[in-house]
Amino acid sequence: MAESVFAIPKGFKAAACSSGIKKSGKLDLALICADKPVDCAGVFTTNKVVAAPVKITESRVRQGLCQAILVNSGNANACTGEPGLQDARRCGDLVAECLDMAPQLVAVSSTGVIGVPLPMLCFEEHVPNLCRMLSHDQFDGVARAMMTTDAFPKMSGRSISLGGQEVRLLGLAKGAGMIHPDMATMLAFVVTDVVLADGLLEKSLSQAVNGSFNRITVDRDTSTNDTVLLLASGEADNQEIVEESSELDQFNGALSEIMLELAKMIVRDGEGATKLVCIQVKGAANDDDALAAARSVATSQLVKTAFFGEDANWGRIIAAVGYSGAEMDPDQVSLLFDDVAMVAKGLGLGSEHEARASEILKQAEFTVTIDLALGEGSAYYYTSDLSYEYVKINADYRT
Amino acid sequence: MAESVFAIPKGFKAAACSSGIKKSGKLDLALICADKPVDCAGVFTTNKVVAAPVKITESRVRQGLCQAILVNSGNANACTGEPGLQDARRCGDLVAECLDMAPQLVAVSSTGVIGVPLPMLCFEEHVPNLCRMLSHDQFDGVARAMMTTDAFPKMSGRSISLGGQEVRLLGLAKGAGMIHPDMATMLAFVVTDVVLADGLLEKSLSQAVNGSFNRITVDRDTSTNDTVLLLASGEADNQEIVEESSELDQFNGALSEIMLELAKMIVRDGEGATKLVCIQVKGAANDDDALAAARSVATSQLVKTAFFGEDANWGRIIAAVGYSGAEMDPDQVSLLFDDVAMVAKGLGLGSEHEARASEILKQAEFTVTIDLALGEGSAYYYTSDLSYEYVKINADYRT
Repeated sequence: MAESVFAIPKGFKAAACSSGIKKSGKLDLALICADKPVDCAGVFTTNKVVAAPVKITESRVRQGLCQAILVNSGNANACTGEPGLQDARRCGDLVAECLDMAPQLVAVSSTGVIGVPLPMLCFEEHVPNLCRMLSHDQFDGVARAMMTTDAFPKMSGRSISLGGQEVRLLGLAKGAGMIHPDMATMLAFVVTDVVLADGLLEKSLSQAVNGSFNRITVDRDTSTNDTVLLLASGEADNQEIVEESSELDQFNGALSEIMLELAKMIVRDGEGATKLVCIQVKGAANDDDALAAARSVATSQLVKTAFFGEDANWGRIIAAVGYSGAEMDPDQVSLLFDDVAMVAKGLGLGSEHEARASEILKQAEFTVTIDLALGEGSAYYYTSDLSYEYVKINADYRT
Repeated sequence: MAESVFAIPKGFKAAACSSGIKKSGKLDLALICADKPVDCAGVFTTNKVVAAPVKITESRVRQGLCQAILVNSGNANACTGEPGLQDARRCGDLVAECLDMAPQLVAVSSTGVIGVPLPMLCFEEHVPNLCRMLSHDQFDGVARAMMTTDAFPKMSGRSISLGGQEVRLLGLAKGAGMIHPDMATMLAFVVTDVVLADGLLEKSLSQAVNGSFNRITVDRDTSTNDTVLLLASGEADNQEIVEESSELDQFNGALSEIMLELAKMIVRDGEGATKLVCIQVKGAANDDDALAAARSVATSQLVKTAFFGEDANWGRIIAAVGYSGAEMDPDQVSLLFDDVAMVAKGLGLGSEHEARASEILKQAEFTVTIDLALGEGSAYYYTSDLSYEYVKINADYRT
């Protein structure tokens, strides 16, 4: 998790501080800043209740240019009405004033408690400091400043070689509760120095989000503040990537890998989670059915509590497929925990298999494979277990 | 909960015993029996994985006649393949042989662990005893013999006067986990001595189920064994009820009341539940939107853990409406806990209101009213809180 592991994309600086939004005194305010306006793309919450900073940022990012991202934790600035919008704008203005850029180039992002006005004094006092502190080695501070109930900061990165030239990608994310598509509820910022032809960035982002943040669940709640931003400075020395090139595939591959790593970190850090479980459905009538079945199993409270109890309760898994809407013939289904078969043609294989499966359930990570034996459809979904700790964290969150 | 409270409909007897299916030695096998074949109607699980007894019973009930219901707890006889179907048929045959009736007149029903063969010796040995034990005062034993993780037996009854003649209804239910429509996952049997014209019973049942068992949630899992059966002996002295009569309205009203009482008992007994919460949505664009919004709030893990934590976290409630798919304008929403306003026109009303709401959340029962201020659509949904105990019960269920 140490920052030194990742090469920082050229053309970006960052800073983080403790501004007092969090009473604990932990890092809670951060800034990512490009040396000049850069290409950007974004994906945002589909919740009809949209937090003020998301409204502001979505309209700004739509222009395709961005220079700075200001992010705070401890307060979501959601359900705060017109004053909340004014506060979000003012946050951006503070950055724009200090760094002498157009306010339209500043993205703002907030995460934390809903329905409480943003403590603007914290911003007024500390944004100028942040602007002065910007440096190349503060990205791990940003990852920390984004945390709410997260147990650890989440970073991932890649350096890839495109035509002999190094291109760097760095991703930061937060998210632990309220994680469910579409899209996975969290904040994620990815910066890269790749040189990419106009119009490709948005497609790359949407494809990577679909295979990563939209394939994870902790609880089923979609938040008001979901935001994924991708900024590309174009400061690397690669030849401009064009559509339908192997270089684009390589870049998209690296982007997808980073995002899936971040997404899995989010599940692993799911509130109270002790396990990361991949639900793999194959043999479905089609991919949509496979995804519906995988999602249904991944979000079943009964399945998730059984994982916590390390109970190879395959009946609950089959039942969750049964109400997913996916086409299925219960008498054809087979099921495995990692490589241990538990069910064949709809019937349990007995206590010896259960004993071996119980060993697999003790692992921190494992895969449940469900084969519907109907067709070629397949899909995966990552989920966590549901523990006492989940209840504790969420029952006590505001107190 | 004592049986003596309820008048037993004429023409029915019952018996219950401990057959050894449950290792605890508690009641686990029961029989309800009419003196002759009677009218019946049923509603069954929509899960594509259908337990063997449900398959058998559904096809038998479709004929509209039934004389006996054999029910066991401790084993669901689900995901048991062709041998499971044979076992379910054999259970019915045992009753039919002992009581000298056609096997087609016997409904069988099972609840408990999935994927384990039914211990047929328990049935072979104890069904004959049950048949000998049938009496008018054993219905509370039946309610107990249906229990799995239920903390208490669930019975409700009514005596109504139709044209000066007494008509009796008695309902028994079980269900604590895996409670979610459509329909609410549980077993419920209602017997009545009403005299009803042909073809009305099914409509009455479906209407009552829709307003009761389909309006509750504990977790979101729909089981493989859901069954609601309604048997009418026609032994009361009322004049035959015909369509579009005030007597039919009166009977349907009593039936709906019983079923809603049983449904609320199931939520109150939701695994680990400490609270019964009614989610009331009004002012929606239409009734479908209202139901979607109410269901979304009622099933949100974050909302349910906040209830457990007695935290008036209205932001989570509004966010759950936001992802429900219901049309909404966040700036028009108001929200109350019982009669305490928390949100008006999308904005929180501050700490004084929160303090009063916190007192309401300490109650064992309360109502959350969400007014979308868009139209005339309304709907309700009953839910429980999500507690440590829920996780404990479901993590340890099979061990």
